Amino acid sequence: MIAAGLRETVLRANRDLAASGLVMGTFGNVSQVDRAAGVFAIKPSGVPYDRLTPEHMVLVSLETGGVLEGPWRPSSDTPTHLELYRAFESCGGIVHTHSEYATTFAHARACVRCMGTTHADYFPGDIPCTRSMTREEVERDYERNTGLVIVETFRQLGIDPSHMQAVLVAHHGPFVWGRDAAAAIEHAQVLEFLARVEWRVRALDPDAAPPDSYLVDKHYSRKHGPTAYYGQK
Amino acid sequence: MIAAGLRETVLRANRDLAASGLVMGTFGNVSQVDRAAGVFAIKPSGVPYDRLTPEHMVLVSLETGGVLEGPWRPSSDTPTHLELYRAFESCGGIVHTHSEYATTFAHARACVRCMGTTHADYFPGDIPCTRSMTREEVERDYERNTGLVIVETFRQLGIDPSHMQAVLVAHHGPFVWGRDAAAAIEHAQVLEFLARVEWRVRALDPDAAPPDSYLVDKHYSRKHGPTAYYGQK
Amino acid sequence: MIAAGLRETVLRANRDLAASGLVMGTFGNVSQVDRAAGVFAIKPSGVPYDRLTPEHMVLVSLETGGVLEGPWRPSSDTPTHLELYRAFESCGGIVHTHSEYATTFAHARACVRCMGTTHADYFPGDIPCTRSMTREEVERDYERNTGLVIVETFRQLGIDPSHMQAVLVAHHGPFVWGRDAAAAIEHAQVLEFLARVEWRVRALDPDAAPPDSYLVDKHYSRKHGPTAYYGQK
Amino acid sequence: MIAAGLRETVLRANRDLAASGLVMGTFGNVSQVDRAAGVFAIKPSGVPYDRLTPEHMVLVSLETGGVLEGPWRPSSDTPTHLELYRAFESCGGIVHTHSEYATTFAHARACVRCMGTTHADYFPGDIPCTRSMTREEVERDYERNTGLVIVETFRQLGIDPSHMQAVLVAHHGPFVWGRDAAAAIEHAQVLEFLARVEWRVRALDPDAAPPDSYLVDKHYSRKHGPTAYYGQK
Repeated sequence: MIAAGLRETVLRANRDLAASGLVMGTFGNVSQVDRAAGVFAIKPSGVPYDRLTPEHMVLVSLETGGVLEGPWRPSSDTPTHLELYRAFESCGGIVHTHSEYATTFAHARACVRCMGTTHADYFPGDIPCTRSMTREEVERDYERNTGLVIVETFRQLGIDPSHMQAVLVAHHGPFVWGRDAAAAIEHAQVLEFLARVEWRVRALDPDAAPPDSYLVDKHYSRKHGPTAYYGQK
Repeated sequence: MIAAGLRETVLRANRDLAASGLVMGTFGNVSQVDRAAGVFAIKPSGVPYDRLTPEHMVLVSLETGGVLEGPWRPSSDTPTHLELYRAFESCGGIVHTHSEYATTFAHARACVRCMGTTHADYFPGDIPCTRSMTREEVERDYERNTGLVIVETFRQLGIDPSHMQAVLVAHHGPFVWGRDAAAAIEHAQVLEFLARVEWRVRALDPDAAPPDSYLVDKHYSRKHGPTAYYGQK
Repeated sequence: MIAAGLRETVLRANRDLAASGLVMGTFGNVSQVDRAAGVFAIKPSGVPYDRLTPEHMVLVSLETGGVLEGPWRPSSDTPTHLELYRAFESCGGIVHTHSEYATTFAHARACVRCMGTTHADYFPGDIPCTRSMTREEVERDYERNTGLVIVETFRQLGIDPSHMQAVLVAHHGPFVWGRDAAAAIEHAQVLEFLARVEWRVRALDPDAAPPDSYLVDKHYSRKHGPTAYYGQK
Repeated sequence: MIAAGLRETVLRANRDLAASGLVMGTFGNVSQVDRAAGVFAIKPSGVPYDRLTPEHMVLVSLETGGVLEGPWRPSSDTPTHLELYRAFESCGGIVHTHSEYATTFAHARACVRCMGTTHADYFPGDIPCTRSMTREEVERDYERNTGLVIVETFRQLGIDPSHMQAVLVAHHGPFVWGRDAAAAIEHAQVLEFLARVEWRVRALDPDAAPPDSYLVDKHYSRKHGPTAYYGQK
């Protein structure tokens, strides 16, 4: 069996996701890529979280998109993961959830605005929402087109996916990534927290002004990049 | 004692319901039908969940609506279950809860709109709400008429109850069904999740547009019917 | 020590209240009356729930309002309980909480409307809110006047406190009662559930119409009074 | 090692904070001052709560603001704590959280109004929000200026920080204090409770009138100051 370590890591990440409260039933999936080996591992489709073993994790080729070994059908969202790994080079792990508040914004096709420093500590601006997909995109290669519409969103808005590591797919839900699967899960939890706060801010005052850009920049750069001074040296 | 297996199943389902967080106190009830035997089993009325034994489960005749054996009075909602089993042939189990968000929509006589793919994965459109009942319907055979007004709602809207397996009764709460009691409980949990999200979508943007019908169809058919490709083969 | 049984019962009720999630810190209190003995027992003031023993429960005379024995100062809300026991003869136990949603309605001086059958199963109409108290009522005998303004509310609205067993005190919070302390706690939990649902109904549709009175009457009489048919015979 | 007791106390307080549900991940920090020794102890920056030992707690000089011993970098918010200890003499412990509802008000730059007696039991009026900080204040000595803008807020509004022991920093979150770290945590929990209720009051009725000032004064003085009569003698 190839890539045993990757399977173990992805199994653990899927169990962590199940314990995180971000998913319901068998919804949601996590993957992690091994770029040197040219493969990523992902959860099988529709198997309850408590029955998963490392052998259930499905290995997918980055080049062909095909399953490399084993009898299991990968998560139906696999082609979305594939397109994100191909387009976003810094992306090492991806998580898809239907977490309640992020999904709320996706249903309303609204972005999660950056309204404070907790948001800026993790994401350097508004978390975008894709456009709706066309009939053609939905009826043929739907899951692959979901990945492509995410990539299109980042290109059109000129957003760098190595910093903005989350997106809402219109009428669907969030896809979130990071340097590995564990980081992706952490970002998905922070996104849900931020979506809860932002949903309440909009109800409290729909006209509330966003923070000044220098405050957002300060907080993001305090934790990320060459001038970071958060945490231990 | 007849139908011991059915009693056990329905007891377990009622305990699962109590543990699901969808009911408060002795509210709520689950039943399951054995169509070959012409009976369904249902919870007794007003007995705390933690005292229930298989013997408490009440067997009711599909033909006469009468209690077949035992000293216990069935749930006061039994005539509603009876009418649903009679009218909806694919229905194998029924659950009634007063879960918070679904009840909120019932109190406001609003449907839970299909606003995204999580909804479409389970229900192929808006979850309907019945009309209010007349004084005559309430004062005489109230619980039976509750079932009849549900059946009327599906007939008038032209909705197929083998696909749309949930309804809100105006100023009351949800009735949810499935191929058996366990499926009915799963659907009731999904309904509550969807009602939470939809309640927040309406607060976030009352004018949010629904998804295109081809996206709803794609997700429902991805998990149901002849072209399903979700889960393992 | 007199009334040992009453002290034990009231201690248990206060512990149940602490476990109910309806109170924060040392907020909240429960009492129960022994009308034959002319006393009620109530929690001492400001003692953490986890340190309470039966000896801490304070016995208060229904006739004089004075403490009958022991070194502990009773809950500061004791004169409110006293006035309710004096005016509402069917009242056997009283609970005061600052539960979140009921307190929300009290802060906004809004009643919890009866918008559905779950409400009508317990309370036969809107749960009223008192008027604001005058400077004189607040500055002198504040807690006793709190009880008197509750009694005034029921008299002016012509509501029967043996059926409507809850009230919101304006800018304060709920007082709830029942045939004993355990019933009062159950009603306080139901009130909080109903306040949660009603708060969401108002957000979903501020103009939602209430149910027809015959539906409310049907549900209340189904569980209470001479024609009740809910539960076992 | 100096101030071992203070380190232990502050470690325990940070663990209590982690268990309180008020913080997410490594967000949030608690400190406590020893005014006789001229030092305060605070959490190190970015170390997970479950790995903290007393040795991790960083001792900071009240006079110089410098770290007194040890290899750990203190919480990045340390200069904010320092300015609050310097300006607010009655302040013995400080907590900073990103608790959800208090942060919501901070994002919308709205105060948490005093709308009822639960609020008045702890805080004698509206909990203020600071102004937004200037570019200069953010880009140079940001954390120190955060403390100074809090102090400015209290001076300009004429609020006494020995009674009003909480503030919201605009687009950031709450800072809360008390006679020691444990009291600060209690106040942070009460603030979050009050922010939840007040957020819901505003949604229920944006025009709801506040309570009369004599009711607020009555409740605050019932628990605080020379005429207090809440709790045991």
